[in-house]
Amino acid sequence: MSIKVTLPDGSVKEVEKGTTSLDIAKGISEGLARNVLAAEVNNEVIDAMRPIETDSTLKLLTWNDKEGKSAMWHSSAHLMAEALEIMYPGVKLAIGPAIKSGFYYDVDFMDYTFTEKDLEKVEQKMKELAKQKSEFIREDMPKEKAIAYFKEKQDPYKLELLEDLEDGTITFYTQGEFTDLCRGPHIPHTGFIKSIKLTSIAGAYWRGDEKNKQLTRIYGITFPKNAELNEYLEKLELARQRDHRKLGKEMELFTFSQAVGQGLPLWLPKGAELRLRLENFLKKVQENRGYQQVITPHIGSKKLYEISGHYAKYGADSFQPIHTPDENEEFLLKPMNCPHHCEIYKAKPHSYRELPIRYAEFGTVYRYEQSGELHGLTRVRGFTQDDAHIFCMPEQVKEEFQSVIDIVLYIFKTLDFKTFTAQISLRDKEDHSKYIGSDENWEKAEAAILEAVADKGLNTVIEYGEAAFYGPKLDFMVEDALGREWQLGTIQVDYNLPERFELEYIGADNQKHRPVMIHRAPFGSMERFVAVLLEHCAGDFPLWLSSEQYAILPISENFNEYAEKVSKVLKNSDIRGFIDDRNEKVGKKIREAEMGKTPFMLIVGEKEMETNTISVRQRGAEDLGSMPIEDFIKIINKLVEEELSHDDLNA
Amino acid sequence: MSIKVTLPDGSVKEVEKGTTSLDIAKGISEGLARNVLAAEVNNEVIDAMRPIETDSTLKLLTWNDKEGKSAMWHSSAHLMAEALEIMYPGVKLAIGPAIKSGFYYDVDFMDYTFTEKDLEKVEQKMKELAKQKSEFIREDMPKEKAIAYFKEKQDPYKLELLEDLEDGTITFYTQGEFTDLCRGPHIPHTGFIKSIKLTSIAGAYWRGDEKNKQLTRIYGITFPKNAELNEYLEKLELARQRDHRKLGKEMELFTFSQAVGQGLPLWLPKGAELRLRLENFLKKVQENRGYQQVITPHIGSKKLYEISGHYAKYGADSFQPIHTPDENEEFLLKPMNCPHHCEIYKAKPHSYRELPIRYAEFGTVYRYEQSGELHGLTRVRGFTQDDAHIFCMPEQVKEEFQSVIDIVLYIFKTLDFKTFTAQISLRDKEDHSKYIGSDENWEKAEAAILEAVADKGLNTVIEYGEAAFYGPKLDFMVEDALGREWQLGTIQVDYNLPERFELEYIGADNQKHRPVMIHRAPFGSMERFVAVLLEHCAGDFPLWLSSEQYAILPISENFNEYAEKVSKVLKNSDIRGFIDDRNEKVGKKIREAEMGKTPFMLIVGEKEMETNTISVRQRGAEDLGSMPIEDFIKIINKLVEEELSHDDLNA
Repeated sequence: MSIKVTLPDGSVKEVEKGTTSLDIAKGISEGLARNVLAAEVNNEVIDAMRPIETDSTLKLLTWNDKEGKSAMWHSSAHLMAEALEIMYPGVKLAIGPAIKSGFYYDVDFMDYTFTEKDLEKVEQKMKELAKQKSEFIREDMPKEKAIAYFKEKQDPYKLELLEDLEDGTITFYTQGEFTDLCRGPHIPHTGFIKSIKLTSIAGAYWRGDEKNKQLTRIYGITFPKNAELNEYLEKLELARQRDHRKLGKEMELFTFSQAVGQGLPLWLPKGAELRLRLENFLKKVQENRGYQQVITPHIGSKKLYEISGHYAKYGADSFQPIHTPDENEEFLLKPMNCPHHCEIYKAKPHSYRELPIRYAEFGTVYRYEQSGELHGLTRVRGFTQDDAHIFCMPEQVKEEFQSVIDIVLYIFKTLDFKTFTAQISLRDKEDHSKYIGSDENWEKAEAAILEAVADKGLNTVIEYGEAAFYGPKLDFMVEDALGREWQLGTIQVDYNLPERFELEYIGADNQKHRPVMIHRAPFGSMERFVAVLLEHCAGDFPLWLSSEQYAILPISENFNEYAEKVSKVLKNSDIRGFIDDRNEKVGKKIREAEMGKTPFMLIVGEKEMETNTISVRQRGAEDLGSMPIEDFIKIINKLVEEELSHDDLNA
Repeated sequence: MSIKVTLPDGSVKEVEKGTTSLDIAKGISEGLARNVLAAEVNNEVIDAMRPIETDSTLKLLTWNDKEGKSAMWHSSAHLMAEALEIMYPGVKLAIGPAIKSGFYYDVDFMDYTFTEKDLEKVEQKMKELAKQKSEFIREDMPKEKAIAYFKEKQDPYKLELLEDLEDGTITFYTQGEFTDLCRGPHIPHTGFIKSIKLTSIAGAYWRGDEKNKQLTRIYGITFPKNAELNEYLEKLELARQRDHRKLGKEMELFTFSQAVGQGLPLWLPKGAELRLRLENFLKKVQENRGYQQVITPHIGSKKLYEISGHYAKYGADSFQPIHTPDENEEFLLKPMNCPHHCEIYKAKPHSYRELPIRYAEFGTVYRYEQSGELHGLTRVRGFTQDDAHIFCMPEQVKEEFQSVIDIVLYIFKTLDFKTFTAQISLRDKEDHSKYIGSDENWEKAEAAILEAVADKGLNTVIEYGEAAFYGPKLDFMVEDALGREWQLGTIQVDYNLPERFELEYIGADNQKHRPVMIHRAPFGSMERFVAVLLEHCAGDFPLWLSSEQYAILPISENFNEYAEKVSKVLKNSDIRGFIDDRNEKVGKKIREAEMGKTPFMLIVGEKEMETNTISVRQRGAEDLGSMPIEDFIKIINKLVEEELSHDDLNA
């Protein structure tokens, strides 16, 4: 009996029932078949070796597909497990999934202490096993039999996993001597795994619960070609060099203290200055767009979060409520600023003539994260959102969206983020029932977002069903200089909080209406944004943002006093820099200032002092010669103005 | 037998043993005697009617003395109690002290609901009783007899008070039909009380404990002359008009929300702008004085406060610790910024060459206050200190003190606070044992403060024994436009935290040394300062601080567009104001702008639009005529510069 298999290009193959995706690939070309890692059959990703039984659509998955990579890495985890069982008989295996880049396996080494030093030996064993091209063989098994298997193997973790599975048939995968409980899919055989790197180990609690035993998590990554591994390792090294935690320390931007608490950054003077400069930059842009600054406390009563609905979600994994001597007064560290801004909106009645009202606040919020999840400035427990809430009429949503997009694009341009995608989350097309707010308003808002994005000609991805229950949203996904993607900047429509806080305005019809609320944070948070910016520009900030726009380099200490004078004039013009008055040769000072990425070097000696001038060198550019200080001020101000004038927002 | 009584002028009177202070006063003059309210005999304040038994010093106390007023008001509380017992038979009396301005009595009216309306009747009865000139008669009584008296009277409050007193002799005072348990002192007789005003009532828990019954607290004030009451009432009305809570609401500066929580101010746009303007003003001054901005979180681990010693004092009357899913991680809302700044200091090693290091932060801190204690912006639960910590060598204390004093004086001048006193708190002269830090350093620091203050020629009060255990300090007491005194601005030396945090620097001798820490906050807190400033200038801020420096007044709506153009030019020059584009006569707009205290009115009509000018009126000054916008910008910038140039700090 034959079945019809439709390929992505629309072509249809008639094949025998039971033909595998791999067979079909071979029918197309042997070369293609050598690259097939898995297959998407009727929208389900399965082993390329599984027979196809009915008329189907088929997409052959290779290394170029996310799912292909995932199958490869998942299989690599099995390969590593196989090597470990051989090398460390009696090890107990927990879980071993593919992740975004590579895979890991959580392993209980029993009495043995596995260290980084052991990684290379395991890598070698994996390479040896890979060469055997062992096929991944799938087998269905009744639950009892599966339990019996792991009982015999004395494997407590797999048994616990099995317990949680529904009764019925369980699948196992075997390659070489190794069998694992697994849903798949897997690659055809281990021979696909050509290049292997075990990258690191970490402690990981069984099931992420600190009360359980700590296992050893081994991370690795594999590739179909050695060249790709090398490229990956180079990129990793580049990333390491511009890791914001490393740069943050070297540049003295921020620090952490065990005594203050994990995940609670302390901004050192240079970091605080940098952050405040970014804040003031955005503040000015917002001022020109009609935003109003407000300031609210960092705690709110439990009642506030009962109204907002957050308290109901405030579980045992959060910062717990703050009790007071008065049992009726309980507070929470604020996890977001919106409830406070709603209360400000409610402080007086509003007319439609006042709308949109835009309350902005650099509001510091606190959210508990497990200590294992914390990471530099990108994952913290306290962070400052560049938050604002826009209260507007439904028909104003589009214009407000456009205005926020303008701000976001201006920021991206000014900070040299060139590649980004607008990710739009809309309602589930099939089911409108799970969202609050009227159908009419949703349609208006969704259309407004789509139009606003189209008007700007943005790269767009639409995700249906990804909207929050309270409204559609737009997130900006930004690629940094190393091609890594970050989520920065969000704009969300909210029909929920205006309901819960009973917000109102008096319309032109003299009736009460409910405003729409828009949450937005172009940076996202100051912490995360500074981290991404640091990694993006490797600490080499644009002139307008740089803490040290110039270095004054006296030729000898005889000119230190004149250097001080120059410095004072520049400071009075709000131009930032420092004097390198070390007793060193000026050539060395210039080289070091170049290395330190100082944009301008101002050399002062006899001639400059006598003529009241400075000799100006621009980093990576020609010597600008000697000039009066005022001329230099004009040059630097013009450059900064150019950097900030990517559009008319700052006008 | 005769005794010697020495008067303040050094003159000595020989009088019979048992002579009263009042008798001595009469001996000097009948007029004086009519004004004597109490007496200070051998440094103890007693009734003027009590006999003097030994050689003594004597100061006769009148209405001009704080203690004289206090005796008068304490006696007035008894007079009110007498009236209440007559008018409301069976009322139970709790406590009735003199306070800073007047007195109160806490009363249990049993079944009766006493309201503001009843106050006048009580006032009348008090006046009637005062005319009887009943003497205040002091009587000693054994404790058992006192208990018996109040048992018979069925007075539970007095009985409870008696229980707490040591066994022995108790004193009672009687005037007219009224007897009270009381230590005194009292005025000679009720006839001194000429002018009476019962001002308000409030609820007050017996002994301040919310678990106890709520009593009615009646506040009042009395004077020896009617003229003084009138003056007092006028001042009260003035104070009411410039009450910062009233102005804050009218000017839309801040608000409170029950849902957010009591004592947690929400800064509305105009208030936030005002506050940020003050912050930026100070930030700039501090930058010029070598301060570095830092930013720290609003919570800290329990451990941090164990190191600092604050946790030991963190009692049940504070915000309670914040628990997390990890029982080893407990946090506290930060009650002060110093521990965080110590951790920043510790983030790297320091050389003596770097000192002084000055970390500044507008740091928001949280301290629990009972809800009854909260008051507008002056007594809140969350407030932002204009905090800084200076880490320096002992020999740098004087210079640092002078620099901080300069900042404080500059602020006072710039904001028109003309009268202030430097209140210096030093060690107890007699007992140096209770202070930490070396004797040598204390002497150095105390001398440094005294010299710094003397150099500046400040009005000074020295309080021995008022220093904290960790160091001497200087507080600025400021008089506002109504003559009320506020504590603003503090500078404190601290030898304790550097010890506790084991702070170090490497000295010129290559050895480790401990730095001295100076805490300082020129404003004190942004909340309190804004409140005092509002009450001081009645909302009429200096030009540099004003939110609305100008109002553009179009003659008719034909010129609204031109007004917009003018507004944009001014905004680009960071000059703040608004357009009054209401459809009103320009005369009315001018009057209202004058009323609203807008410094400049810019009138635009046909002529101005054609010639690209504005007609400028300065509030309370002559008409400045028409001029190009640029000229007005020069005028306003020059005025602001003058306001800010009270010394060279801003250079």
